[in-house]
Amino acid sequence: MTDFAATKAMFDLPQGMTYLDGNSLGPLPRTAAARVAQAITDEWGQMLIGGWNRAGWMDLPRKLGDRIAALIGAEAGHVVLGDTLSIKLYQALASALDMRPTRRVILSDTGNFPSDLYMATGLCRTLGDGYVLKTVAPENVAEAIDDSVAVLMLTEADYRTGRRHDMAALTRAAHGAGALTVWDLAHSAGAFPVHLAACGADFAVGCTYKYLNSGPGGPAFIYVAPRHANTARPALSGWLGHEAPFAFDLDYRAGAGIDRMRVGTPPILQLAALEAALDVWNGVDLNDLRAASQALMDQYIAGVEAACPDLILATPREHDARGSQVSFRHSQAYAIMQAMIARGVVGDFRAPDVIRCGFTPLFIDAGDVVRAVGVIADIMQNQLWDNPAYQTRAKVT
Amino acid sequence: MTDFAATKAMFDLPQGMTYLDGNSLGPLPRTAAARVAQAITDEWGQMLIGGWNRAGWMDLPRKLGDRIAALIGAEAGHVVLGDTLSIKLYQALASALDMRPTRRVILSDTGNFPSDLYMATGLCRTLGDGYVLKTVAPENVAEAIDDSVAVLMLTEADYRTGRRHDMAALTRAAHGAGALTVWDLAHSAGAFPVHLAACGADFAVGCTYKYLNSGPGGPAFIYVAPRHANTARPALSGWLGHEAPFAFDLDYRAGAGIDRMRVGTPPILQLAALEAALDVWNGVDLNDLRAASQALMDQYIAGVEAACPDLILATPREHDARGSQVSFRHSQAYAIMQAMIARGVVGDFRAPDVIRCGFTPLFIDAGDVVRAVGVIADIMQNQLWDNPAYQTRAKVT
Repeated sequence: MTDFAATKAMFDLPQGMTYLDGNSLGPLPRTAAARVAQAITDEWGQMLIGGWNRAGWMDLPRKLGDRIAALIGAEAGHVVLGDTLSIKLYQALASALDMRPTRRVILSDTGNFPSDLYMATGLCRTLGDGYVLKTVAPENVAEAIDDSVAVLMLTEADYRTGRRHDMAALTRAAHGAGALTVWDLAHSAGAFPVHLAACGADFAVGCTYKYLNSGPGGPAFIYVAPRHANTARPALSGWLGHEAPFAFDLDYRAGAGIDRMRVGTPPILQLAALEAALDVWNGVDLNDLRAASQALMDQYIAGVEAACPDLILATPREHDARGSQVSFRHSQAYAIMQAMIARGVVGDFRAPDVIRCGFTPLFIDAGDVVRAVGVIADIMQNQLWDNPAYQTRAKVT
Repeated sequence: MTDFAATKAMFDLPQGMTYLDGNSLGPLPRTAAARVAQAITDEWGQMLIGGWNRAGWMDLPRKLGDRIAALIGAEAGHVVLGDTLSIKLYQALASALDMRPTRRVILSDTGNFPSDLYMATGLCRTLGDGYVLKTVAPENVAEAIDDSVAVLMLTEADYRTGRRHDMAALTRAAHGAGALTVWDLAHSAGAFPVHLAACGADFAVGCTYKYLNSGPGGPAFIYVAPRHANTARPALSGWLGHEAPFAFDLDYRAGAGIDRMRVGTPPILQLAALEAALDVWNGVDLNDLRAASQALMDQYIAGVEAACPDLILATPREHDARGSQVSFRHSQAYAIMQAMIARGVVGDFRAPDVIRCGFTPLFIDAGDVVRAVGVIADIMQNQLWDNPAYQTRAKVT
């Protein structure tokens, strides 16, 4: 049985804050500062250029990729870190489209994270030649899969509602129609068990700064199924994806397997923070994590619904149909969230009307949920959100 | 007059090492560790998601972009940090091609950094429709500019030989033929004065981990001339380049000006290191820097040529025709560089036969050059490179 009191002790959480926003930016693992300081002072400072070999910098994207592979049900050697989620999505999508040259449709849903839709739109424009992004409501994805679809591109857990797609069933349906799949695991990796290989996923991408706690702007990852790894053609063909980067040949030749999805020089300081953050996962059983997360969500939903009839649940009640976050809707969602934050309960407002909270058993326990429900109940029952200080929107949230 | 003894004291240089490889990875500025520790402990640790506003994380790519703009002769407000150089190059190139829709040729040279050529090749393949990358020898670029060329894509200072293109003349020639320019400043920014605006450059990209000393994997930058800033269409259309990223609209609308070249979440730890590194430039006059760099290169060339007749100079002697690095050729270049490194003089081997050393007055002085020349003379005069330990190639250098 995973000891979640022990994992909670591995984080440096601010006094008096109940942090229900690890699904946006995970908290600071206690060992991260020392690991990054080591990378700066002992590695960069003392080894300088030699750090690429002597400190193992060049191998970090693959080495940490293997550790993430273990968390998402991927085969070892088929995940690599680098760039941002938007860039990794573009790579996966471009490669997948290239493998279905007679088809022109990217199918996605209106609940997908907008950047995924934007990147797909940009790629379609660059490709020209009739490529289009088609979006349907999340619940209509299955029926929209037909033999015009080249790629089914979905975020497994909806960033706004927490609704979770059935990866196995939709991948099967896509393959049945001759399409490939690109799964965005932004709200999956580290949130619950993912079974990429067992589901037959073709490509997957994700970020590390949410449930994997790598810090602000931590690098993204990409997975390519072994059956595609040596045939997928990179659109972003950078030197570190070359078969022999340091031969400095003038012609591009894609590297072996997942290495071809590397592009430029990897961000070593961010990777060092990620390396420390991944240590928290040693000894965590993802099934225990999932069970604990479901219990926290059930407790939160029951508490909020009992105390706050004006808040409308936007997240599925069924366990299998949701990720690890719970959203309620209210026309004053922005002000309510500001009032919550002012009382030390930190979640996210998501436009236009969503109060989103993430439940991460690594550092959130039942006592935190009791506190959060109490604060929300007080705000709703006493209309504490009705305060001009909570109405002015900050530039970003 | 710039006080280079003072700037040298701002770096944490390993005892006994003469570091002539700042053109590959700049050394550690003394204040970087503390600045990154602050970003980790005080900002990430205490503010968590609030750091995006309260610690100013979201604005860092623009704020530091302005500081870099001042070093490359760019207009304030038209440089932004993010991603890697390869990605930024792809963005610039895709936007430039899009602005010359009737033309199909990217013109570059065989001395360009291979990743630039690889990214251009990948973009041409994605675009299809007859797009091609054409490369000529560096000295033949001017005569190859004709009205088939959509974009002239060059690295100003050759990564291998240090040969420097005439940015003003080639930009003028490109414009005269109706083409646009994309300049890679990897070996220019922080190496000598650059005058993007005065030269009329259309797009420019560069990295920060060489002469700007931001640390391993520090972010890249991109410049778009003000006259193109609101018309350039981003191919990598990520959410942070959207007009309103936090509205989470389903449709992409490019943000104003250089903001549209942002893509995904910026790497805050790397940006914090860059912020500290840029402080070194306060009080540095780039003309002083250039004069000091030329003097160091002249001293090095004279010393090596006097002592080592077997080493053949690959870098132009003329001041205006070179960047801030000096390369010599020798069939045993790899082993010679290993022997140099073993004696604490660190430069770079570049395939197939180049011994490359960078001269950065911020932390290299005449005494360092005397020492380097002495070490090289000893190695060459006593054939110390002829040692099996120096022949085995490490995976990366």
